[in-house]
Amino acid sequence: MIGQSLPENGIDAKALELVPRMSDQGYAGQYVERRREWIEQKTGCHLAHVGAHSIPSEEMRGNIENPIGAAQMPLGVAGPLLVNGVHANGVFYVPMATTEGALVRSYERGMAALTRAGGVKTRVHVDENRVAPVFCFDDVSDAYDFVQSVKEDFETIRAEAESTTRHGKLLRLECHPVGREVIVGFSYSTGDAQGMNMIVKATEQACRWIIAHSRTRRFHVFSGFSSEKRASGSLLAGGKGKKVTAGALLPKEVVKSYLHTTPAQLFDMWHHTILGHMQANVIGYNGHYANGLAAIFIACGQDVANIANSAVGITNFEVTEDGDLYASVTLPSLTVATVGGGTGLGTSRECLEMLGCSGSGRAAKFAEIITATLLAGELSMGGAIASDEFVQAHETYGRNRPK
Amino acid sequence: MIGQSLPENGIDAKALELVPRMSDQGYAGQYVERRREWIEQKTGCHLAHVGAHSIPSEEMRGNIENPIGAAQMPLGVAGPLLVNGVHANGVFYVPMATTEGALVRSYERGMAALTRAGGVKTRVHVDENRVAPVFCFDDVSDAYDFVQSVKEDFETIRAEAESTTRHGKLLRLECHPVGREVIVGFSYSTGDAQGMNMIVKATEQACRWIIAHSRTRRFHVFSGFSSEKRASGSLLAGGKGKKVTAGALLPKEVVKSYLHTTPAQLFDMWHHTILGHMQANVIGYNGHYANGLAAIFIACGQDVANIANSAVGITNFEVTEDGDLYASVTLPSLTVATVGGGTGLGTSRECLEMLGCSGSGRAAKFAEIITATLLAGELSMGGAIASDEFVQAHETYGRNRPK
Amino acid sequence: MIGQSLPENGIDAKALELVPRMSDQGYAGQYVERRREWIEQKTGCHLAHVGAHSIPSEEMRGNIENPIGAAQMPLGVAGPLLVNGVHANGVFYVPMATTEGALVRSYERGMAALTRAGGVKTRVHVDENRVAPVFCFDDVSDAYDFVQSVKEDFETIRAEAESTTRHGKLLRLECHPVGREVIVGFSYSTGDAQGMNMIVKATEQACRWIIAHSRTRRFHVFSGFSSEKRASGSLLAGGKGKKVTAGALLPKEVVKSYLHTTPAQLFDMWHHTILGHMQANVIGYNGHYANGLAAIFIACGQDVANIANSAVGITNFEVTEDGDLYASVTLPSLTVATVGGGTGLGTSRECLEMLGCSGSGRAAKFAEIITATLLAGELSMGGAIASDEFVQAHETYGRNRPK
Amino acid sequence: MIGQSLPENGIDAKALELVPRMSDQGYAGQYVERRREWIEQKTGCHLAHVGAHSIPSEEMRGNIENPIGAAQMPLGVAGPLLVNGVHANGVFYVPMATTEGALVRSYERGMAALTRAGGVKTRVHVDENRVAPVFCFDDVSDAYDFVQSVKEDFETIRAEAESTTRHGKLLRLECHPVGREVIVGFSYSTGDAQGMNMIVKATEQACRWIIAHSRTRRFHVFSGFSSEKRASGSLLAGGKGKKVTAGALLPKEVVKSYLHTTPAQLFDMWHHTILGHMQANVIGYNGHYANGLAAIFIACGQDVANIANSAVGITNFEVTEDGDLYASVTLPSLTVATVGGGTGLGTSRECLEMLGCSGSGRAAKFAEIITATLLAGELSMGGAIASDEFVQAHETYGRNRPK
Repeated sequence: MIGQSLPENGIDAKALELVPRMSDQGYAGQYVERRREWIEQKTGCHLAHVGAHSIPSEEMRGNIENPIGAAQMPLGVAGPLLVNGVHANGVFYVPMATTEGALVRSYERGMAALTRAGGVKTRVHVDENRVAPVFCFDDVSDAYDFVQSVKEDFETIRAEAESTTRHGKLLRLECHPVGREVIVGFSYSTGDAQGMNMIVKATEQACRWIIAHSRTRRFHVFSGFSSEKRASGSLLAGGKGKKVTAGALLPKEVVKSYLHTTPAQLFDMWHHTILGHMQANVIGYNGHYANGLAAIFIACGQDVANIANSAVGITNFEVTEDGDLYASVTLPSLTVATVGGGTGLGTSRECLEMLGCSGSGRAAKFAEIITATLLAGELSMGGAIASDEFVQAHETYGRNRPK
Repeated sequence: MIGQSLPENGIDAKALELVPRMSDQGYAGQYVERRREWIEQKTGCHLAHVGAHSIPSEEMRGNIENPIGAAQMPLGVAGPLLVNGVHANGVFYVPMATTEGALVRSYERGMAALTRAGGVKTRVHVDENRVAPVFCFDDVSDAYDFVQSVKEDFETIRAEAESTTRHGKLLRLECHPVGREVIVGFSYSTGDAQGMNMIVKATEQACRWIIAHSRTRRFHVFSGFSSEKRASGSLLAGGKGKKVTAGALLPKEVVKSYLHTTPAQLFDMWHHTILGHMQANVIGYNGHYANGLAAIFIACGQDVANIANSAVGITNFEVTEDGDLYASVTLPSLTVATVGGGTGLGTSRECLEMLGCSGSGRAAKFAEIITATLLAGELSMGGAIASDEFVQAHETYGRNRPK
Repeated sequence: MIGQSLPENGIDAKALELVPRMSDQGYAGQYVERRREWIEQKTGCHLAHVGAHSIPSEEMRGNIENPIGAAQMPLGVAGPLLVNGVHANGVFYVPMATTEGALVRSYERGMAALTRAGGVKTRVHVDENRVAPVFCFDDVSDAYDFVQSVKEDFETIRAEAESTTRHGKLLRLECHPVGREVIVGFSYSTGDAQGMNMIVKATEQACRWIIAHSRTRRFHVFSGFSSEKRASGSLLAGGKGKKVTAGALLPKEVVKSYLHTTPAQLFDMWHHTILGHMQANVIGYNGHYANGLAAIFIACGQDVANIANSAVGITNFEVTEDGDLYASVTLPSLTVATVGGGTGLGTSRECLEMLGCSGSGRAAKFAEIITATLLAGELSMGGAIASDEFVQAHETYGRNRPK
Repeated sequence: MIGQSLPENGIDAKALELVPRMSDQGYAGQYVERRREWIEQKTGCHLAHVGAHSIPSEEMRGNIENPIGAAQMPLGVAGPLLVNGVHANGVFYVPMATTEGALVRSYERGMAALTRAGGVKTRVHVDENRVAPVFCFDDVSDAYDFVQSVKEDFETIRAEAESTTRHGKLLRLECHPVGREVIVGFSYSTGDAQGMNMIVKATEQACRWIIAHSRTRRFHVFSGFSSEKRASGSLLAGGKGKKVTAGALLPKEVVKSYLHTTPAQLFDMWHHTILGHMQANVIGYNGHYANGLAAIFIACGQDVANIANSAVGITNFEVTEDGDLYASVTLPSLTVATVGGGTGLGTSRECLEMLGCSGSGRAAKFAEIITATLLAGELSMGGAIASDEFVQAHETYGRNRPK
């Protein structure tokens, strides 16, 4: 039983009682129910809400193991958001799942300001994903020779990698020698999938060819360099997901009526907080990208852990010669998908459909909408700080909080 | 209509159609339904799953605005996990909400290995939260004088701050002068709440006193220094949430049978991937903290955006003189709550109850369980890389993926 | 013995011919000459200038081994620089040793502007140095207990540390647990010496006491945490040397006549280059601190390798409401000395005397002058970039360069 | 004119007394002497050593302004160092100028160990330098279009840039869009010069063409991205100077006799200090690159401020299956020159000649020797920490220090 004190020495047998897997890994409704009951019994709790899901449990196969139901998170909608991108064009209402009071209202405010100002321009600069295996050699000279050979063997390596996938295209290889080992960044185009599993498999295939045709002693398919689900400085250069920019010119009147501040005050806030970021050794600069990303990622069935890399970027505010505000967001490593992963499941599919982003050919559009949304969030948060409304907003909307 | 091309010049009136708020912000069931229908009409999609939630919509007030229902995410359970902490003691089954196939299985494997090895020791080193306003002065000498005065006025400032809250205690002030401005880190104990709103309010109160009693020209309550929802180097020193360590000694036999590798191979993996992290300029080192954090945070009603700061930390592997493995995880800025925010809602409350972590006095326990869980994830991921099982595991369990 | 036991694999015995040490390590004039001749013979070069030094070779003992003479570097002087600090007050002419054409002229220009504007205010916020040993334990619980005990044992540890030194005072201990090990930052006041050797010795003494009175399995006196001679994010918080700020208000007329630009243009330059720094993942922000530091450090007999940590800091530019410029420099880890090391040797002593900074009680003054100098350099460089004069200046003054 | 228009607010006119420039900027011997006397009079000090230089003052033109003599720094020599590189092959005795006692002895020890072990392999992976102007646009769409156009216009831009230089070759352009601006990295081959001035001039020329042929509103030739004389994460990817690796296999017997430790202990030291680096948020990992770099840069007339970027890199230690040590150093941004700058002056030229590195075609050789030297330093420092000899070594050799 949980909470009981276990024997000081010697592991209690009960400690090793595994979660029941049942037939065919137990995705059928009755198995999920039985597993949930097993957990209820084990832990002495009642899981009524957990069991009250509408997604058929069989559809969860491939997305979760040991299923016992579904988590529910409140879903709101923020908009209207006018986006003038290459892939996204029009007015959007963005689904956001969160439990942080005031968050949806905050994004909504920024969206209204942006839309009123004529909308957000968005551009996708880079659209790729990478895996970075590391190859070990006997000495720095072998490592050096390998770097030279990789350049020559690119076409062969590409053919090997692409032999395992229909959607992944190997774009280039980038060598980072460290002493007698060489990290090789494999950069792929992955279509509309997040693509991580796809490109890991392709890269493994390529590595096997390399192993057979080089003096490599051994390799690891992951070197830690790719910054998947981690924040890193190298993400700013792009290559881990989509690099997207969003920008808008906001006339001072719009800043005044929607954000209750002036372009100069917003910029002053930017100036001071950038020093704070610097002092804290933050990578890049942003107000609260993680809030918007988390809310949309949960709503739309994205791999939520990709927040760690997607939340790296740079928000910029500028006062124009006319005294208006130019605001932009640069996301160098936004990892999103409109096919695969959790994108096809129940509420996720519905939320993607709400944006016209479900299925193939929509990932770039989805990325543009997200980036525009984050710009709205930066403006609204910036406005709240600059105008001293932050505390008040949270007092009004965020009630489920101890004081 | 979404997708229509908007007029080149001039903002379409429809672009500014706001989401209907309705009476008392519209949390009553019929208002949520009506809003959902409005969105369905606007976007031409059908939101059946979004409407199929069991959390009463009125309970969402304070956690979301413009509610239209709830997002559902598959929920599995990983365990058994034997934790020998100060606050958490016993065997736990950990709820994880995710759509990444193989993730729950991977954590489960690590947990089984740890439990079989005698469990995970956990310790909470620091338990605080901070806000860092910035004060602006006329010159560096005024800023210098202010730093001196803050030391003297601590008790008064503390009284001011604590006058606004029952739970927050101001522990100390830390001055970071930058030219003629001074960032002041306010570090609080916040009990079992995540506490951000609580301490922002307290800090604002203190700032008003400071403004009235110093040569400060102006201040911003947020300087960007606190690294709330951002990854930063300064997080490693702790102070933004709980600093927790988890460690375990795994005999080589356990490593072999559960992780299919050896301590030496695991360490070799650590060694090489740390070079990759370094080359990528990652903050700290970890395999995939963000995965475990996201899954638990979503399940347990945490503020998911806090992944951005919570996923900063250091995983360490060591081969002992006996050839066994000592593995540890250090999380300097784990931001969690067991009261307030989304912790009381439907599935969130149930998942916290599954861990015996719902309500007051449980935040440190919850933090220890999470840290132990992340250690399990690091071991399993490390084992998969070291033993070349990664691709295979994802092929077996992760099926909802394009190839 | 080196050179003995000739290797089989083709390495010439001559490869192991050591530099002659001679009697009492060979600092006497004739030994230095003989060693120089030995090198000339070995390498076939003529070392006339190397031999033409005025510092008596015997005085080099303790500063160098295997001496063959001295390196000469051109020495110029920049000024006047009006400093209004706590320790430095008055007009200074700053000795700068460099071979980068235009550098002295550039600093001189900034100094003239600052002096004309009424001078530079400077303040020393922190004055300490640190060593950070690491202690290893059996598990995270022992590490946790150790952290608690360190707090209790502070006075004893301090007495141990201070028993080895007259000048070093142990100010505080800061524990950074990482898994089952604990990095302990020992922060000292070191008087006017750079003090690194002094505090390493004191810390070793303290560590021996700790080893004898704790469950520590072993320790390393250097954990790599202290960031001695390395750039790191943690330096921004101070504690590795002196934290100094320098600031000045420059009327727009002064900016115009001396820097050939406007406050607004200078700020625009700051704004854009800060984005560049961010994109490159630079620690802090500065134009070219390293230039001024190198030139003064070489002139004044400092440990030049300390540039690596001293060059971390933050330059800030602000346009005031009146359209003037407030410019500041914050150096959190300036490592300088006015006694010990190379400070007493020939030209070094003379250069320190030129600033009234030779000998005891002058280190803070020296630090303030340096920081004011760097502010001059930031202004001049910023002005050159903002006004497009950079290329021209280097064309005029920097002639010893290939095109 | 500087000094004119006396301020009203109390600043003494004398505060503005400029250093005398004299005829033709005053490089003739008598002018230098007169200027030195002027400074002596101003500051009340005696500059005998400063005047005792052997470099003719007229030769200092282009390297310094306002010359008053030369700084002298003790010069020692460390060796023998056996290098097996592509450009450097043979045994070297390395000139090092320093005032840090024990430093030369420490490098010498590492060199002896390396030489005894069969020498150091070195490889130059990348040899280029970069300038990174930033171009500003009206919105993110214009910035996006510019990025596309840069790819198309590369040949024209290259021709413009190369029209200004005989030695610089433009290798590629790399675009980093940040909102509505675009940082463009111009990467050049610069022959044997450090080349910064050369490539700034070339880039300015190219920028003028770009301005005339794009919608760029304005540009700054420096964006801060290039990390010249600053430490940054992006340096690890190379491109700012030479990327060089050096590695060696040291049999355990050599480690024992020369470094008084074992490969396992050295590695343990590496392991623990890397955690310390991580905790401090250091860029890369190294023991004390800055020491070796400073000593060689001063001796050999390099731009000493380039230590700031050159000292970024990664030292790696590995224990081989046979229990020996493989040690390597990776320097991604080593900035050195054998022509131009201070390389032709007096002692600098002699020190370069000591290494066979004076003049054209020697920069890569010089870079290989430096990298091998730093490897020696890492081994010796590592050995001292691992074997607890550090304090003792500094007690023995470093005497000019207060205690």
